[in-house]
Amino acid sequence: MKWWGWGDPAVEATLDDEALGVLRERIGELEPWPLARSLEEFELPAAEALPQALVEAVGEGNVFTADEDRLRHATGRGYADLVRMRSGALAAAPDAVVVPPNAEVLQRVIDVCAADGVAIVPFGGGTSVVGGLEPLRGGHGRLISLDLGAMRDAEVDKTSLTARLGAGLRGPEAEAALGREGLTLGHFPQSFEYATIGGFAATRSAGQASSGYGRFDELVTSVRLLAPAGGISTLQTPHTAAGPALRELVIGSEGVLGVIPEVTVRMRPAPTTRRYEAWMAESFEAGAEIVRALAQGPGLPEIIRVSDEEETAGTLALSGPRGAAGSLFSRYLGLRGRREGALMIVGYEGDEESTARRRALSVRALRDGGAAYLGQAAGRSWEHGRFQGPYLRDTLMAMGAMVETLETSHTWSRFAELHDAVGRAIRETLDGQGTPGLVFCHLSHAYADGASLYFTFISRARRGAELEQWAAVKHAASEAIVAHGGTITHHHAIGRDHAPYMEAEVGQTGLDVLRAVKAQLDPAGIMNPGKLLPAE
Amino acid sequence: MKWWGWGDPAVEATLDDEALGVLRERIGELEPWPLARSLEEFELPAAEALPQALVEAVGEGNVFTADEDRLRHATGRGYADLVRMRSGALAAAPDAVVVPPNAEVLQRVIDVCAADGVAIVPFGGGTSVVGGLEPLRGGHGRLISLDLGAMRDAEVDKTSLTARLGAGLRGPEAEAALGREGLTLGHFPQSFEYATIGGFAATRSAGQASSGYGRFDELVTSVRLLAPAGGISTLQTPHTAAGPALRELVIGSEGVLGVIPEVTVRMRPAPTTRRYEAWMAESFEAGAEIVRALAQGPGLPEIIRVSDEEETAGTLALSGPRGAAGSLFSRYLGLRGRREGALMIVGYEGDEESTARRRALSVRALRDGGAAYLGQAAGRSWEHGRFQGPYLRDTLMAMGAMVETLETSHTWSRFAELHDAVGRAIRETLDGQGTPGLVFCHLSHAYADGASLYFTFISRARRGAELEQWAAVKHAASEAIVAHGGTITHHHAIGRDHAPYMEAEVGQTGLDVLRAVKAQLDPAGIMNPGKLLPAE
Repeated sequence: MKWWGWGDPAVEATLDDEALGVLRERIGELEPWPLARSLEEFELPAAEALPQALVEAVGEGNVFTADEDRLRHATGRGYADLVRMRSGALAAAPDAVVVPPNAEVLQRVIDVCAADGVAIVPFGGGTSVVGGLEPLRGGHGRLISLDLGAMRDAEVDKTSLTARLGAGLRGPEAEAALGREGLTLGHFPQSFEYATIGGFAATRSAGQASSGYGRFDELVTSVRLLAPAGGISTLQTPHTAAGPALRELVIGSEGVLGVIPEVTVRMRPAPTTRRYEAWMAESFEAGAEIVRALAQGPGLPEIIRVSDEEETAGTLALSGPRGAAGSLFSRYLGLRGRREGALMIVGYEGDEESTARRRALSVRALRDGGAAYLGQAAGRSWEHGRFQGPYLRDTLMAMGAMVETLETSHTWSRFAELHDAVGRAIRETLDGQGTPGLVFCHLSHAYADGASLYFTFISRARRGAELEQWAAVKHAASEAIVAHGGTITHHHAIGRDHAPYMEAEVGQTGLDVLRAVKAQLDPAGIMNPGKLLPAE
Repeated sequence: MKWWGWGDPAVEATLDDEALGVLRERIGELEPWPLARSLEEFELPAAEALPQALVEAVGEGNVFTADEDRLRHATGRGYADLVRMRSGALAAAPDAVVVPPNAEVLQRVIDVCAADGVAIVPFGGGTSVVGGLEPLRGGHGRLISLDLGAMRDAEVDKTSLTARLGAGLRGPEAEAALGREGLTLGHFPQSFEYATIGGFAATRSAGQASSGYGRFDELVTSVRLLAPAGGISTLQTPHTAAGPALRELVIGSEGVLGVIPEVTVRMRPAPTTRRYEAWMAESFEAGAEIVRALAQGPGLPEIIRVSDEEETAGTLALSGPRGAAGSLFSRYLGLRGRREGALMIVGYEGDEESTARRRALSVRALRDGGAAYLGQAAGRSWEHGRFQGPYLRDTLMAMGAMVETLETSHTWSRFAELHDAVGRAIRETLDGQGTPGLVFCHLSHAYADGASLYFTFISRARRGAELEQWAAVKHAASEAIVAHGGTITHHHAIGRDHAPYMEAEVGQTGLDVLRAVKAQLDPAGIMNPGKLLPAE
């Protein structure tokens, strides 16, 4: 992964002149934003030495203290992280990166850290966009990044269609291991190429096909947690009524209760048919109503997305007239004589029969809801670009733009209200700073009772005040979410950025309960300090 | 409800001579087991007076201290409960029954009890079969039964297909409220006629149609808990990634963390078509393989059950030759010339199209798996008797029999192993006590990764040692479950009876976490003492 951005350094997302024109017209002239320093010149704070007992516990060969290792484990991949990487200096970094080879050694590392007061930030794929990897010491003198990259076992139970997967397996590695048995997890978040199984569990990840396959928390049948106070392994049975679900306390715990070394997940037979297609709904509201009808009936497609009017226009414009999206838009315009609408992506995966059957149901709902068919080319274009968003962000940032995303969810009754309120909050805050922006939103996860809203905003970066600018927009959007009863996060998790909103999410008594659980499992407070729970 | 047994006193389940003959042949001669005393003569311990502040908090008219009220709130409806009712005396009962009219008063009652050291046993439908209502004082001088029967609001959101339901609504009341809007919860446990919404949530209930509609925990979108330390209301959004799921900590908490005054649940359109039918698989193993194929594919029926060979033979014999089951069995025998097999009940609910479509998929899997179709009459017979089991238990107990059920679940890989081990443990323990029995088992909840096992055993009661006899069998079955990695309960919950197995279920660290949560929410330990968590 690029040290300063997302993904394969050899891959670069580009925008053509037409797209650049649209961008300039909407957000103004941009001033190039180069990296301030090279990797070699990057400034990190000096590292504290680790306790000898810790080095002995994990083995010297599994401790990495080079600046590049520390830098690569010092941040996630949110906008704020990338701003700091561009600045060429970080105020904080882990003292070392520790890579335990197995769960037994991992428990020993935790025990030594607890005894010696060494803070631990668990590290999976390094893809957090909410400050989940921030090297906060929580009052401890030393801090390690605990990289789970060596824990990569995969053990498949073909009879039960479950697999025990090591926390360090990246998305493609896990899919490859299951694919060899003709199976799939069906979990494809935008971070899929780098994010890990352990991270999916620790953050309650949801993927692009989760409407069909289920979110990651729904795929987990049992989980293991290693904490300073000891280990928890939930029983691997398809269901139990044995009290509160500890599995659901470990999932989403974001490293603050302990480390997840492995999870057992449900799988499905790998699909033999995949069909992605695009439709144009009359409006975002009409598109959402179609999704509601599908989600409240049988046979919801694996993938269903609706872009709002601004995202639709923006996506098509930024894709350029020569792109697949551009040509389908022209075709659509020609066919319908309408300039506005809401782009929908509908994807079916499974065997041929089930795919065809569910498509027939969906097509009926889509037509009943007034949507027009745009064909499979645009669907394939979406599929081709489904993991490309973060690459494009690097390109836009280098041009001088702020690019950020945030997400929430609500019941259908309050879905439109929340969409309006959050979009308005973002627009007004951008305008108020003199950096008017593009504010896109799409629905990407559908449920019988509601859906998610995923916002993307792009504006000129206020150079020299990038983080203040970003924080102001994030704050306004978060306050709007909370005021309208939405959740502060549908699938990005809490990390450091959303911790101030946990009280709005679970109440004071709920916070006290989470703190009591943390005090029980991590009495010294070494596990991922400053994340999930707000400062008291 | 009968004070000494299950359900409407006017309803009596009877067995014909043929069935009685089969029973005698298998379990020996029975000695009638009448009630030792009438309701009027029943002996209860004297009641302690309630603190005046408590009476004032709830209002005098909402406090009930008559012996009949205390008796009716002193037990659940497990075999051990009914044995003690037959004995005519109880060693323990609540000092009073308190019925708060709303959540505000309920919180005041909890606060006063916490301040004055009054233990609380929350009471919904009174249908626990695991000792969940046992009036254990946990060291406190006084104990109330907190009856939620007055909390019966139902507020439907037809757009989001959700409903906020008061904890005190019984199953039929909740269904009636939703039915008026053309909706259903689809939650039909055998206790449906009496059990309540609050109880479903507090015990992670699963119903007979949960393979299709989802278990109760899957239907809950948000929940409220009132505890001595304050209240928790989880946000009502279709999903959140905001940390550990407190909702899943409240669900299944069995009154030990606080009281659930209301829950918000997902609903479905009420089915316009219902079709129940019976099939005969070649064996329990073959039937389970058919269910596995269905659960791992699309379109699992709403109801799918497989009785093992002994339950099949016993059910058909006990139904008598004149019953629907008897006649279908004769027909089956005539058609197939087979005496043995595993009876399957398959039920489809929904609109006509979806029902027909899924039936076609199921029929293919059933035929591929070697099952023979027995027709809808037997399916309707099952439907007719689906809530009758507990009535028949009263009849059998009055005849002198022990009748008890227990349940577990496991992955498909270890399903047969667990079925064998638990059945053998029950049989051997019954034989060892000189009371050989009928030991039935069925699969009633199917998942992609495994299924539930529901055991029923019937033997001669060892008069004068009924509870010792029961405890020995229960112990042997529980040890077998634990030894083979099954869960101690798939849907009956923990209560008092399963608390000793919680360490096997969640481990010592898991127990410590649950205790820390309890200490945070209920520092005085007044909430349902002695349930869920084993004594330290």
